[in-house]
Amino acid sequence: MPTTYHRIVGGSVHRLAAISDGIFAVAMTLLVLDLHVPVLEMLHAQHPLWAPDAIGGEGQLWHALARLVPRLAVFLLGFLTLGMFWLGQQAQLDHLSRGDRHLTWIHLAFLCVVSLMPFSTALLAQYETYRVALLVYWLHLLALGLLLLAALRYAERAGLIRPDAPAGLAAAARRRIVVAQTLYAGAVALGLVSTYLSVALIILLQLNSAIAPNIRPLNRF
Amino acid sequence: MPTTYHRIVGGSVHRLAAISDGIFAVAMTLLVLDLHVPVLEMLHAQHPLWAPDAIGGEGQLWHALARLVPRLAVFLLGFLTLGMFWLGQQAQLDHLSRGDRHLTWIHLAFLCVVSLMPFSTALLAQYETYRVALLVYWLHLLALGLLLLAALRYAERAGLIRPDAPAGLAAAARRRIVVAQTLYAGAVALGLVSTYLSVALIILLQLNSAIAPNIRPLNRF
Amino acid sequence: MPTTYHRIVGGSVHRLAAISDGIFAVAMTLLVLDLHVPVLEMLHAQHPLWAPDAIGGEGQLWHALARLVPRLAVFLLGFLTLGMFWLGQQAQLDHLSRGDRHLTWIHLAFLCVVSLMPFSTALLAQYETYRVALLVYWLHLLALGLLLLAALRYAERAGLIRPDAPAGLAAAARRRIVVAQTLYAGAVALGLVSTYLSVALIILLQLNSAIAPNIRPLNRF
Amino acid sequence: MPTTYHRIVGGSVHRLAAISDGIFAVAMTLLVLDLHVPVLEMLHAQHPLWAPDAIGGEGQLWHALARLVPRLAVFLLGFLTLGMFWLGQQAQLDHLSRGDRHLTWIHLAFLCVVSLMPFSTALLAQYETYRVALLVYWLHLLALGLLLLAALRYAERAGLIRPDAPAGLAAAARRRIVVAQTLYAGAVALGLVSTYLSVALIILLQLNSAIAPNIRPLNRF
Repeated sequence: MPTTYHRIVGGSVHRLAAISDGIFAVAMTLLVLDLHVPVLEMLHAQHPLWAPDAIGGEGQLWHALARLVPRLAVFLLGFLTLGMFWLGQQAQLDHLSRGDRHLTWIHLAFLCVVSLMPFSTALLAQYETYRVALLVYWLHLLALGLLLLAALRYAERAGLIRPDAPAGLAAAARRRIVVAQTLYAGAVALGLVSTYLSVALIILLQLNSAIAPNIRPLNRF
Repeated sequence: MPTTYHRIVGGSVHRLAAISDGIFAVAMTLLVLDLHVPVLEMLHAQHPLWAPDAIGGEGQLWHALARLVPRLAVFLLGFLTLGMFWLGQQAQLDHLSRGDRHLTWIHLAFLCVVSLMPFSTALLAQYETYRVALLVYWLHLLALGLLLLAALRYAERAGLIRPDAPAGLAAAARRRIVVAQTLYAGAVALGLVSTYLSVALIILLQLNSAIAPNIRPLNRF
Repeated sequence: MPTTYHRIVGGSVHRLAAISDGIFAVAMTLLVLDLHVPVLEMLHAQHPLWAPDAIGGEGQLWHALARLVPRLAVFLLGFLTLGMFWLGQQAQLDHLSRGDRHLTWIHLAFLCVVSLMPFSTALLAQYETYRVALLVYWLHLLALGLLLLAALRYAERAGLIRPDAPAGLAAAARRRIVVAQTLYAGAVALGLVSTYLSVALIILLQLNSAIAPNIRPLNRF
Repeated sequence: MPTTYHRIVGGSVHRLAAISDGIFAVAMTLLVLDLHVPVLEMLHAQHPLWAPDAIGGEGQLWHALARLVPRLAVFLLGFLTLGMFWLGQQAQLDHLSRGDRHLTWIHLAFLCVVSLMPFSTALLAQYETYRVALLVYWLHLLALGLLLLAALRYAERAGLIRPDAPAGLAAAARRRIVVAQTLYAGAVALGLVSTYLSVALIILLQLNSAIAPNIRPLNRF
């Protein structure tokens, strides 16, 4: 009876956490592959800084680096997004007493979307003025939120949550996801006017949620 | 006597699990490197969406992304395959009391095949209409199945399975591998007619086994 | 109340350590991607070494490899730097009784800078004679030091340090960071004369701190 | 006193094992990046296999894959080498009661050489007929062996080995490294005649040590 097999797999929350950490770590580090070292047409020989023209030669590289700043901002966005969802997933896994195969596959689907993140981030970095790229990025955020929500709901219904988990844990996590997703949707809607506005707003929202300043109402999101 | 060395290595199931998680995580994330952000010939400046031509400019990127869909399907296939074998390996490792050097090398051979998966997946994505690519992918699946089977058999014979492991564990895992491999072989045989059919069938088989719907007889595979 | 969510996330020092190990491991290994196998214009067929011209043919590859030595030195620098900060972070995490969301975000910011290291290292390898590249690398070092300092200060104030941590732990770690950063700043200042001098000095400082020879005053840094 | 800092870092064998597993996992998986999917000049449309010319079209890809076999062999060599040294390092770490900063830096140097392995492996794959490439690979093997030996010796002298470690552990590990390195040196010496011979011999030696057949005298290495 194959159902026996289904009962013996996926029981280890520890290993689910381990592969999650691995995939998040690789995805976070691959984001940076999109930042290419600029290629200058000609390299200059080195002079002491007080020699004439020494500073002029540096200027070329300086300008090339300055042109990378928008990409760096998108990299930062990608890292913040992954960090946020890593924390969200961890908050769930930390409070499970055990896993099962359904829960494991929901989390694997979540990790599959996570591993696509370097692609969406690179797309947004390349096509910052395109609404299509912003839309793809937002669908990404939405999918991550919905899958975390599904994992939470399944864990609740299957009785996988630790008995000593703080009361209201699931409700707080759920509210958190819904509020964040609503704000993202609003930020993306502003992309009808300008995609730069949307990206800036999403970064601000995520920075706010990362820093969680002690100012009302900012600390409620 | 070198055999002393042989006796002191490979005893840690914990570290075997750790390197397995690492290799699976990297292999799963490298799959996405095959999805390249499309290059458009000319970038357009941004206009508010109500400006004339604003939507026309987006269409170009939209079409470029649509052309990536078959590759995305192959990426999904690769991720599902790796997820499935990760679970299968985990089901074994979770129930071992200890390892030894032979078991470790069987699992390292398994991980070696796992680390080749991004290659086979990229090959299939590039040559979707070629039976040779499908054959390589299938040999890959077969090798993974056979190595898991070998690891299981060795663990049984060497008495490495935990005494408190559920009865019938090994038999269930074995049956599972044999059934899955038979179905894969059947799906690949249909590649004589069309490779698309084969790939679609393998994806469906794996999705079925991931979702394990509560419908007979689908939940038996 | 979203603050409930804020209270339930980031409590696991174990998972923070796991994702840190993952990001450091990937960043350390990606450094090597910058070392490209040289491309020779024509490959020679193989002759036994005593055949005429056999050694001449090898010479070409030998010279191509010799030209990689400066890049190898920069790779070594990058690896040493990451190793040093990995140890520094570990020294902190090992002595925490628990984490919280603020601490986790400080460490995620630290890891974000870590994951940018392959970029800065490649930049320095490509533009060894440019002060701008050296400056970027130094800002990197500075950011890593400041973030570790911030994490330490926060952990102290939030009472996250284990009660059984050795007395003077925080003070020693703090002094260590300040001394190292001062020395780095001095080494970089010498870059006004020559960037090679700066890089050589930084490597020596880090080697000294890695080897920690039993010679006064070298073992004090 | 900075020596306080030196005393508080590097104590965690667990985290040293974790970053080792991470670096080995990434290095093992990066080896495969050297296997490029072949590019055919023209793709063919798909016909059922019984249509005329269907098989001819496949032949092209088949030949392109066959040309990858030598690279696959070098990939296998790289994976075997890394697997062997991973096991060797694990055998040491498993029997340590604790670490210290010197031990950690010896292992970090070891990991640094490990992370260079994809480079040496790619070099050997590209320049199979060049003795220089073989020499670089061998220096790599030698460095790994010597660093493991240094780590072992240091652990013994600093009293870091667990009291319950099997007697003769260190002697067996040391003998193992010396025997293996002697055999490698012999195999490489044969490269004076033909590098293919050397590579084949090293693969055979490593396969023998991985499989450890129950045949005298093969099971003594």
